[in-house]
Amino acid sequence: MDALLPAPDFATLKTRLAQGLPATDTVASKAARSRQSSLTKPPGSLGTLEEMAVFMAGWQGCERPQIRQAQALVFAGNHGICARGVNPYPQEVTAQMVANFRAGGAAINQLCRTSGAQLSVVELSLEHPTGDFTAGPALSESEVLEAMAQGAASVATGIDVLLLGEMGIGNSTVAAALARALFGGHARDWAGPGTGADAQGVSLKARVIEEGLALHQPDPHDGLALLAAFGGREQAAICGAILAARQARVPVILDGFICTAAAAVLHPFGDALAHCLAGHCSAEPGHKRLLEALGLRPVLALDMRLGEGSGAAVALGVLRAALAVHDGMATFAEAGVSGG
Amino acid sequence: MDALLPAPDFATLKTRLAQGLPATDTVASKAARSRQSSLTKPPGSLGTLEEMAVFMAGWQGCERPQIRQAQALVFAGNHGICARGVNPYPQEVTAQMVANFRAGGAAINQLCRTSGAQLSVVELSLEHPTGDFTAGPALSESEVLEAMAQGAASVATGIDVLLLGEMGIGNSTVAAALARALFGGHARDWAGPGTGADAQGVSLKARVIEEGLALHQPDPHDGLALLAAFGGREQAAICGAILAARQARVPVILDGFICTAAAAVLHPFGDALAHCLAGHCSAEPGHKRLLEALGLRPVLALDMRLGEGSGAAVALGVLRAALAVHDGMATFAEAGVSGG
Repeated sequence: MDALLPAPDFATLKTRLAQGLPATDTVASKAARSRQSSLTKPPGSLGTLEEMAVFMAGWQGCERPQIRQAQALVFAGNHGICARGVNPYPQEVTAQMVANFRAGGAAINQLCRTSGAQLSVVELSLEHPTGDFTAGPALSESEVLEAMAQGAASVATGIDVLLLGEMGIGNSTVAAALARALFGGHARDWAGPGTGADAQGVSLKARVIEEGLALHQPDPHDGLALLAAFGGREQAAICGAILAARQARVPVILDGFICTAAAAVLHPFGDALAHCLAGHCSAEPGHKRLLEALGLRPVLALDMRLGEGSGAAVALGVLRAALAVHDGMATFAEAGVSGG
Repeated sequence: MDALLPAPDFATLKTRLAQGLPATDTVASKAARSRQSSLTKPPGSLGTLEEMAVFMAGWQGCERPQIRQAQALVFAGNHGICARGVNPYPQEVTAQMVANFRAGGAAINQLCRTSGAQLSVVELSLEHPTGDFTAGPALSESEVLEAMAQGAASVATGIDVLLLGEMGIGNSTVAAALARALFGGHARDWAGPGTGADAQGVSLKARVIEEGLALHQPDPHDGLALLAAFGGREQAAICGAILAARQARVPVILDGFICTAAAAVLHPFGDALAHCLAGHCSAEPGHKRLLEALGLRPVLALDMRLGEGSGAAVALGVLRAALAVHDGMATFAEAGVSGG
């Protein structure tokens, strides 16, 4: 299969997507399910851990999947919508937090070390924020495609799982706009406190989102057009990374509301998110609704709402546990236990 | 403070318990909370991870708690109530699974390796099942105290956290009986499939529990009498280990329904469970209700229902993540990030 990205224009990318994406290996996932029922435990008693092992088996194409290399990719971007006052933090915090990632001082650094993931941080034109989406499109078609290509190119070769995260002051407003455009309702259903907006701030977010909707009147079935309308670059890069991972049959762990809303842009394209796990359900109120709309069940629900890939990194620890029991447990026959 | 266990009789143990148990160090937990608000993230954005770090700080008595040594203790016992046909597996499976633990083939072995816990398995007179609680008391007072003392003595010195689990064919019926006796309702509210009983099996469990309740008419405020009435030895050992951990100010991670029901026996004794975290909410239907009755919020909800300490071991991974961010993150001042 040819690479999906880089692509010269939206039409070409859509044509490529319409040709279909790699599917899970049902022989391997069936073998994994059968192994699960031979292990020394009541059938089904490991719950989600069993489902995760079977999922990984399908994408890795082998009965006993392994995680040798895990990559965490955090994309950072800036947003013109900040001009509308949607975030209590100044926009410079995006670059300051990128410096913090590089210096090893952020939450994601500690969580990647704990769960055994290699962290890569990718800055996307921080000095050029996207356009204010209440005044015009956030990005041009070529800017969207460039960010998608950069996201795809950032996926390391030879990895067994990819964790996605983001950083971008103002991007919870962008996420809520994408979710509202894709799944309807009112912007109030999707806008939340983000990094810490108060009730008045949340109302403002909802208002600017509805303004953006009225201006762009976007087609909810055209995910790429939504990226151009609302942005941002880190959202486009997340989409590019998800597609590159899919082409390499690498499962993806999504992070919180903002990461999931970016991934949701690919939802209109058939089963483009079939290789994605929802790492957690964040405390951002729109996330639960969004996960339900996407049919994704989160691994964790720890009231986290930080982003940066933090929830995905904690979920990687659970995935490692799932594969450890799947690979290491004795069968009833091996252990001489009755009842298998 | 003198050791609570061994104790010569219930009355002496109750007198010792009434003298009070070590409390959390509020200076350390306040310092930890203050550190959390100085770290490079929006306040509160790490949710449960922040709460876990503050909890550990209080029990460890220092602002930046560490887990150097984690012990997982799995207690195994057999139950006379199996004579009533409450479990689809034969009683020999308890000993067979203990052998599986010792050989390293069970789920808990893999999960302890993944989360970095040292596993100890303690068999409690497997060849002498408790009495059938529908015919008389499951254990004598001295048998309860002996198992409690064995549990207490099994807690290793110098550990930073203790994980508790159990194995015992028939013990989900014992757990439901304890919960019913402590918190009322009908046995149907507490009995569930356990290792895999069908609807008829669950009805039978509920029936024998109500028979036991009618026979013993236990005082819900007398946890020790409940252990004598319904058993079993692993439940008493769990209580002993919880008390020994408390005296050493070692936090405890509880496992699923059966482990939590055993711990609940200590609920009538003031704040005896204040140093316990609920590792997860199991798929066993009574567990959610039991956690609510105890005011415990589970870390995970992965539809696990295996026991053995398996849910506690997965939760240890989350606790390690919580302490890693708490200890390793930069403050706003250190990182030069605006907004702290």
